[in-house]
Amino acid sequence: MTRKRIVPSLLAASFATVLAWATPASAQFAKPEDAIKYRQSAFALMGAHMGRLAAMAQGKVPYDAQAAQHSAQIVDTMAKLPWEGFVPATKSAKTGTRPALYDNMDEVRQLVERLNRETGQLVEAAGGLDTLRTQVGATGKACKACHDKYRDRDL
Amino acid sequence: MTRKRIVPSLLAASFATVLAWATPASAQFAKPEDAIKYRQSAFALMGAHMGRLAAMAQGKVPYDAQAAQHSAQIVDTMAKLPWEGFVPATKSAKTGTRPALYDNMDEVRQLVERLNRETGQLVEAAGGLDTLRTQVGATGKACKACHDKYRDRDL
Repeated sequence: MTRKRIVPSLLAASFATVLAWATPASAQFAKPEDAIKYRQSAFALMGAHMGRLAAMAQGKVPYDAQAAQHSAQIVDTMAKLPWEGFVPATKSAKTGTRPALYDNMDEVRQLVERLNRETGQLVEAAGGLDTLRTQVGATGKACKACHDKYRDRDL
Repeated sequence: MTRKRIVPSLLAASFATVLAWATPASAQFAKPEDAIKYRQSAFALMGAHMGRLAAMAQGKVPYDAQAAQHSAQIVDTMAKLPWEGFVPATKSAKTGTRPALYDNMDEVRQLVERLNRETGQLVEAAGGLDTLRTQVGATGKACKACHDKYRDRDL
């Protein structure tokens, strides 16, 4: 039973993610700094729009379905991008990423697949405030699951 | 006749762009630095994927329809984002943007609408190498039209 439940959820992982991982990432960046800038840019936009969604979910900003759906779309699109920027050549760079990430790529991949599933659901959830609240929480947990392990706290 | 041709092209400007401009931009960013980081992140991702498309268009990298369509989608999505980051509070910041941009927002808006039309066509053009070549050129010209006026050369 457990296996049966796991397999469809893996299959449900977005095709785009699978594609991104299949791409020879190092070929996309001329220099390690380019890869770092690329992933940090995607994280920055994801963070900005997660912040807007969280503000609505927490009632700090009035809920606006159109703005929420726009932000959710950006979060979902950005959530597929940064991973190819974690090329081996960037392991020793001083960023907020712990070097351990590069030694645990199989686990990171699973964390990314979880994130991508949550952000996919975020797009649908953004159409209503109650569903948005729930899904912002679930998405935030997926972010945190990876940050707790592989991101330095002091960033 | 001229008017008749201009009006539909204005109407064709993406709804998303119109929305982005209609949003009270300053409300989205707590600090000027946040607005700068936001727009620079969008430009960085747009530039990275324009670079990948240009490499295919120039034959430096083999044409791959799926990769081209992915990059074109990112370019098109990113091309709608940075403009809300040009809030008045960032006018005096040391970035690659000439302060004159802030005094010519009506013209900037037109340049952005042109860019958004070209990136929309880029998504369709990415399905074939010949069409991609042509549209990478047209999109690059739309980028350049704004850079020439409002971006410092030495960036």
